Amino acid sequence: MTTSETAVDVVDFTPGRWGNPNDPMHLSDSVIGALTMLGINEAAPAPVDLVIPASRLDDAALADLAATGAQVSTDDTLRAARLRGFSTPDLLKFRAGDASDAPDAVVAPTTAHQVAAVLAVCDAAGIGLSPYAGGTTVTGGLVPDRTRPIISLDLRQLTGLIALDEVSQIATFAAGTRLPDAERLLGERGFELGHFPQSYEGATVGGCAVTRSAGQSSIGYGRFDEMVVGLTLATPGGVAEIGTAPKSAAGPDLRQLILGSEGAFGVVTQVRVHVHPVPAVRRFYGWHFPDFVAGAAAMRALAQASVKPTVLRLSDEAETGLNLANPSAAGSASGPVGGCLMVVGFEGDQADVECRDAYVTARLTELGGTPLGTEPGEHWREGRFRGPYLRDPLLDAGALVETLETVTFWSNIDKLKADVTAAVTGALGEQGTPAVVMCHISHVYPTGASLYFTVISNALADPLEQWGKAKAAANAAIRAAGASITHHHAVGTDHRGTYLEEIGDVQVTALRAVKNALDPNGILNPGILLP
Amino acid sequence: MTTSETAVDVVDFTPGRWGNPNDPMHLSDSVIGALTMLGINEAAPAPVDLVIPASRLDDAALADLAATGAQVSTDDTLRAARLRGFSTPDLLKFRAGDASDAPDAVVAPTTAHQVAAVLAVCDAAGIGLSPYAGGTTVTGGLVPDRTRPIISLDLRQLTGLIALDEVSQIATFAAGTRLPDAERLLGERGFELGHFPQSYEGATVGGCAVTRSAGQSSIGYGRFDEMVVGLTLATPGGVAEIGTAPKSAAGPDLRQLILGSEGAFGVVTQVRVHVHPVPAVRRFYGWHFPDFVAGAAAMRALAQASVKPTVLRLSDEAETGLNLANPSAAGSASGPVGGCLMVVGFEGDQADVECRDAYVTARLTELGGTPLGTEPGEHWREGRFRGPYLRDPLLDAGALVETLETVTFWSNIDKLKADVTAAVTGALGEQGTPAVVMCHISHVYPTGASLYFTVISNALADPLEQWGKAKAAANAAIRAAGASITHHHAVGTDHRGTYLEEIGDVQVTALRAVKNALDPNGILNPGILLP
Repeated sequence: MTTSETAVDVVDFTPGRWGNPNDPMHLSDSVIGALTMLGINEAAPAPVDLVIPASRLDDAALADLAATGAQVSTDDTLRAARLRGFSTPDLLKFRAGDASDAPDAVVAPTTAHQVAAVLAVCDAAGIGLSPYAGGTTVTGGLVPDRTRPIISLDLRQLTGLIALDEVSQIATFAAGTRLPDAERLLGERGFELGHFPQSYEGATVGGCAVTRSAGQSSIGYGRFDEMVVGLTLATPGGVAEIGTAPKSAAGPDLRQLILGSEGAFGVVTQVRVHVHPVPAVRRFYGWHFPDFVAGAAAMRALAQASVKPTVLRLSDEAETGLNLANPSAAGSASGPVGGCLMVVGFEGDQADVECRDAYVTARLTELGGTPLGTEPGEHWREGRFRGPYLRDPLLDAGALVETLETVTFWSNIDKLKADVTAAVTGALGEQGTPAVVMCHISHVYPTGASLYFTVISNALADPLEQWGKAKAAANAAIRAAGASITHHHAVGTDHRGTYLEEIGDVQVTALRAVKNALDPNGILNPGILLP
Repeated sequence: MTTSETAVDVVDFTPGRWGNPNDPMHLSDSVIGALTMLGINEAAPAPVDLVIPASRLDDAALADLAATGAQVSTDDTLRAARLRGFSTPDLLKFRAGDASDAPDAVVAPTTAHQVAAVLAVCDAAGIGLSPYAGGTTVTGGLVPDRTRPIISLDLRQLTGLIALDEVSQIATFAAGTRLPDAERLLGERGFELGHFPQSYEGATVGGCAVTRSAGQSSIGYGRFDEMVVGLTLATPGGVAEIGTAPKSAAGPDLRQLILGSEGAFGVVTQVRVHVHPVPAVRRFYGWHFPDFVAGAAAMRALAQASVKPTVLRLSDEAETGLNLANPSAAGSASGPVGGCLMVVGFEGDQADVECRDAYVTARLTELGGTPLGTEPGEHWREGRFRGPYLRDPLLDAGALVETLETVTFWSNIDKLKADVTAAVTGALGEQGTPAVVMCHISHVYPTGASLYFTVISNALADPLEQWGKAKAAANAAIRAAGASITHHHAVGTDHRGTYLEEIGDVQVTALRAVKNALDPNGILNPGILLP
């Protein structure tokens, strides 16, 4: 097989709608039937035109920004296209015509030198800046505090494979490189990144770094924060090259201070990341487990073994029932009725895949799994970026649909799943809108795993307020269970309050100190991560 | 096999000499012959008595410290036993009677509550404190700046397995727990830590955390910083619980800010660490490679594969020739003449070991290796903590012997090895003392590996000055090659200057900000990590 199997075209998402506008998803009759059972039978109001506020930047400031060589625009359409991200609340605001968060200008440098120059202008003039690349945030990462004027620092022209060390398997990318471009450029050299978050078609290398992205092959190739060996960071005080070696005992690992910093400590302009040769063999299987508890126990056994697959994903009974792992057939049952679907994938050379496949197959059989062959695995692989495409037609149809995720240790997984499900269904039920809450595990570690929830309910007249109550209840349940508020969606502004409770005063003090030292004038993504 | 195979008695090292005083190593005739070839034929001068400076703490300060409930002593012998660590310069100063770095008191809390109380007393009185646990530092980590009075905060009574989550495979240890004790306590429950640094017999869980220790099974079980899922940190401003989940996208990973902080940001009192069931099967093999380049290429291939052994170690031609991988037989040739010895170990359940063993055996054969059976592997495993025991008799015999280590990406490994070897042999040769420089790789990653050097030469009248020149030359070579100044020995005071050059101004600014925020009065290990 070739890299073309994993290379999806770069998609410029339509502002306000997820995915490729030329290839939208439509709801099947079975999905529409399921909606009816939830009382969803009235289409959403038609979107209204955006009201875009005037730019607050004066001509002198714009001239200073333009003097850096970066492209500068205050065009309304362009500013609206850099507005917020792709959470359901973001989309609902878009549909309501609310563009109050639009940046005051879009500034697009074409070199790292221009990034530094823009930082200097902003630092001197007290202009805030919000780095923009893929724009796929679902946690308010593109909605900085607007007390001061804000520019959207558009990094999409910082793109390309700058260097490839084939011996060390390290690729250096400009931060604005979209993931499909990264795969195409690497593929020409016989390598791949193998990082497939749900936002793959839009996400960038730099964005994956600063938000600690996790891809669908995380058990095989690691999370993005595990793949990064180095970063170039532009700060108002100068440029830092972070990361000297694969691992080191030379003090704290400061890569891990910048990974997850979401633009609050500096602007990442280059990322050095571990890559691997294009696998000769790819195999994806489906397995059936009688219930989620049995499936999760099998996931744990594999996560704690030395021999691991490349992809591992378990849908709970509800998600399996709605067939969400195969978006093109969502809503129609396939495979065994009831129970849970597990997807298990292997990539590598022939001998390596044979060895791992044999071991994993034996373990899963011991643990109560029933093999379903390659068809469910291949269906999942083919459709794996299209699940979220269903959201816009669902919203159109009058549904409220959103996802949320968390992570905890294995001994806490069953309780966390129950608590979050109860919190969300409770908060929506109290508003008279029963909900379906589905869940999957797609990232596992020896000590724990993430839980990813998809919620569908009937949208009320004010769906923002409606979802806000459900999300607050979920956040409270996650905190009460001692889990982390996010496994791979990051903090942004939406999770900030719960995040600060999670880490506590001493850690907030340390982060605040780093922020003040690297960004004394507070221009870097103000309000993101820290208030 | 049982845990008794890996459980070595806790050894209270004699101050000034490494290892178990009841089980010293003696030099074989073949080692003595090798020394003669280097011109080493005059025994070192006999050690002189230590001159221990008086404590600078007054009765009021000592009373305040004692009021915390911690044990407090200014006894000279006890203070001398908390003096420096176990680098060769440390041992040479000890032999010269130099106890000028002795702490002013030894303060031994028995609870985390007492640790916090001692921090409060020190913070109020401006007394510096240097956490002490295993005492096995080889980089000056126990020699804080003595501008102010210093206490040695002896954490060895904070010991024990506090909790074991068998489902999540997480053990919570008090920071002062020695590694052999940790293995014994876990072994009673069917688990093990599997962390075997060269200092295993003396090192503690907390020390391994704050110095980013790497054990001999790092390819199998990870470095210590990869095993840690949580830490409890006492700071003057309060206690922090760091680490909510296995991995998270909730901001920077602040565990990685404390790991490697060497007591400069707080005192680690508890560590939550990934453990695994005691393996049912352990197999260790020897392999022969024609030269270091071929052996290193094979190491790289395994490090970059999905299927990995549990232990992987390659001695270069010089180390293989002196048989250092089998300390009991050091100096006497064994196995094939010439070339390099690789040790490959597997631990796990039967099916898992069979699977990995078959894959690795086939790969190593393809890559030019010759299997030597289990005898060289078992010899290495049996003797693996005893190599450093040779240092004291070598120093006694008039040799200068020391180790140093570094880490870089694979494409830079051969050059780094050549450059460091040339720098050290050059600096010693210029002083009229030719040197043997041996090297091994014992920690590998997909993107690179560590290099560990052992240097033997004839000691001059001032061996401290003599080694100082060699170490400075090695540091400069490491920096010039773009490698990291330390892979697992940490920074301490010995590497501080080179470390600050390695990370650069922006990163120093960030670290300094964290230090000032968490330790505003500068009492925590002053001068360690940061000046």
